[in-house]
Amino acid sequence: MKISPDTTLAEIGESGAWRVVRPYVARSGAGAISTGFGDDAAVEDIERPGRLVSTCDLFIEGVHFLAEWGDWRAIGRKAMAVNISDLAAMAARPARALVSVGLPPDFRARDLRALYWGLSAEARRWGAAIVGGDTTRADRATIHVAAWGWAPPGRKMPLRSRARPGMGLFVTGSLGDSAAGLALLADPRYAGLKEKGYARRLIRRHRLPEPRVEEALALAESLGEWAAMDLSDDLGRSVSLLARASGVCVEAESSALPVSRELIAFERDAAGMGERASAEGPAAPRRWAIGGGGEDYELLFAAAAELEELRAAFRRRGLRRAISRIGAISACPKGGARLDRRPWPCQGFEHFR
Amino acid sequence: MKISPDTTLAEIGESGAWRVVRPYVARSGAGAISTGFGDDAAVEDIERPGRLVSTCDLFIEGVHFLAEWGDWRAIGRKAMAVNISDLAAMAARPARALVSVGLPPDFRARDLRALYWGLSAEARRWGAAIVGGDTTRADRATIHVAAWGWAPPGRKMPLRSRARPGMGLFVTGSLGDSAAGLALLADPRYAGLKEKGYARRLIRRHRLPEPRVEEALALAESLGEWAAMDLSDDLGRSVSLLARASGVCVEAESSALPVSRELIAFERDAAGMGERASAEGPAAPRRWAIGGGGEDYELLFAAAAELEELRAAFRRRGLRRAISRIGAISACPKGGARLDRRPWPCQGFEHFR
Repeated sequence: MKISPDTTLAEIGESGAWRVVRPYVARSGAGAISTGFGDDAAVEDIERPGRLVSTCDLFIEGVHFLAEWGDWRAIGRKAMAVNISDLAAMAARPARALVSVGLPPDFRARDLRALYWGLSAEARRWGAAIVGGDTTRADRATIHVAAWGWAPPGRKMPLRSRARPGMGLFVTGSLGDSAAGLALLADPRYAGLKEKGYARRLIRRHRLPEPRVEEALALAESLGEWAAMDLSDDLGRSVSLLARASGVCVEAESSALPVSRELIAFERDAAGMGERASAEGPAAPRRWAIGGGGEDYELLFAAAAELEELRAAFRRRGLRRAISRIGAISACPKGGARLDRRPWPCQGFEHFR
Repeated sequence: MKISPDTTLAEIGESGAWRVVRPYVARSGAGAISTGFGDDAAVEDIERPGRLVSTCDLFIEGVHFLAEWGDWRAIGRKAMAVNISDLAAMAARPARALVSVGLPPDFRARDLRALYWGLSAEARRWGAAIVGGDTTRADRATIHVAAWGWAPPGRKMPLRSRARPGMGLFVTGSLGDSAAGLALLADPRYAGLKEKGYARRLIRRHRLPEPRVEEALALAESLGEWAAMDLSDDLGRSVSLLARASGVCVEAESSALPVSRELIAFERDAAGMGERASAEGPAAPRRWAIGGGGEDYELLFAAAAELEELRAAFRRRGLRRAISRIGAISACPKGGARLDRRPWPCQGFEHFR
């Protein structure tokens, strides 16, 4: 049966869906990989000892994304990128992924192809490959990625529990762009701004996060004990998790939070529309960074290092990503996250609530 | 906050859900495993080269299970068991699993605990451990397990594409029990039979499949080239997939299909109720085995071996599971599955259709 782009999964069935998906799944190459589509499991020879780092994320339409916001390529790329970002946060080099999708019967072959195109393109960008998965029926599009990668054995992992008093607190890149991009997509008050150049770049940062793989590997090479996480949650929640896991106080300064030119431009236009009062808290653009919803997928990390050393580590690898020192780790009996010497003002997003 | 059994996820939030789940996730022991709950990824040192075998399954309420059929312990056990069974079909020893759950906000802490109890108990039965995962909101309970295990490098894997003319076709255990158990659960015509002893055992086979891990490892030790799969699908579809993957004809005899005493007893009562005519096809109980819906999770395999050799391989390992020779592999240009010298009568279940 020929599969045309408008064909639905109901017409082609599970085996037809596999035919659509198969080009995006790594083939048995030199006996190294056999795919999990077709066989019950994927197989790979691991030639030498190493440290296996594994993660997974469940991504559900209506909870994590809305089909109408982006094309399925972008949704596929994001579903893979957030897993790659988890591996980056552990300073592991991405290697393989298993992808499961649950889709409604009226889902189109065209969109399934786009979804897998996105998933596999993002994996390949980071040297990884999809090696298998599962395809099933669901009421709502459901995407699950399990991914693993490798870190050198013997090296200290940047666990969340390894922040120590005296360390500095750092982030890569800029913060709040993704939250602002989400607001531009979802909040009707900003509909008139969507076509601005800055808005498109902010929306892109929400839809296509960039995992900081090379940055994390550069840091892992130059640091001993450190603690890291990716900013999938917003900064307030992330900083709280780091503080609790390490039993320390994490103190940040709102004036030190790095914000992009695009976010500043957006905030200026939004304030001009009278939609946001800028007098009620920290400088306006930084509010997006402080508790805006997260999903910046920058690295947040604590290390006993000077900013200049860290920048040098990036330069040695040819990385031009910014690093900012946004605060410090201090001893405190109860642990906690503080911004500008006060308890962190935003709770962050929790599922189920 | 104290979490009482009736507390809902909406009340305890994502961090509360983690507290419920954490006891079932392997801790950082001797630096070997650090969990993916709390950190961005799980970490494990792989001490020597090996063959990594990985699989995953997406399990959705209303598609793969109904919450009202079984308790959440049983649902958790089954979600893990079907992954363990995939590893068994590749003759790999189970090792680790990542578990993601999507749950509605009114899901109770008690049920979340039962679900993870089931998942981790089933993993531990086979020497495996849950090392991490993801917890998120969903309209319908959604469970995803990604699992991996290890096979000795250099050994021939029982890929589906490795059936060769002249091989015999074999299955472990008995067939059709799970399909009959599902009918007893779901078909109101059989409501009056549910409490019979045989019915309870058939229902149990549907709800708590037994992966054939030790059986597969025993076969892998004694066989060279072979092809295997687990009977997650029904026999007709499975045999067709094996035939197509290997480019052979798979010929089975309905009279050779092993059926349990329980299935025979059920069929006798069902026929006595006038609900099923036994004249229209192969001997009645075997219809459940031929195209009844699958989920027996027995091993189906092709090998150039005599039945007595295979039984001896089981005995050497102290395994008392039955093995039956149900047919043979022959050369045929188009490939295909045949039962009693005619094209296989049942299509089997396909998602999306």
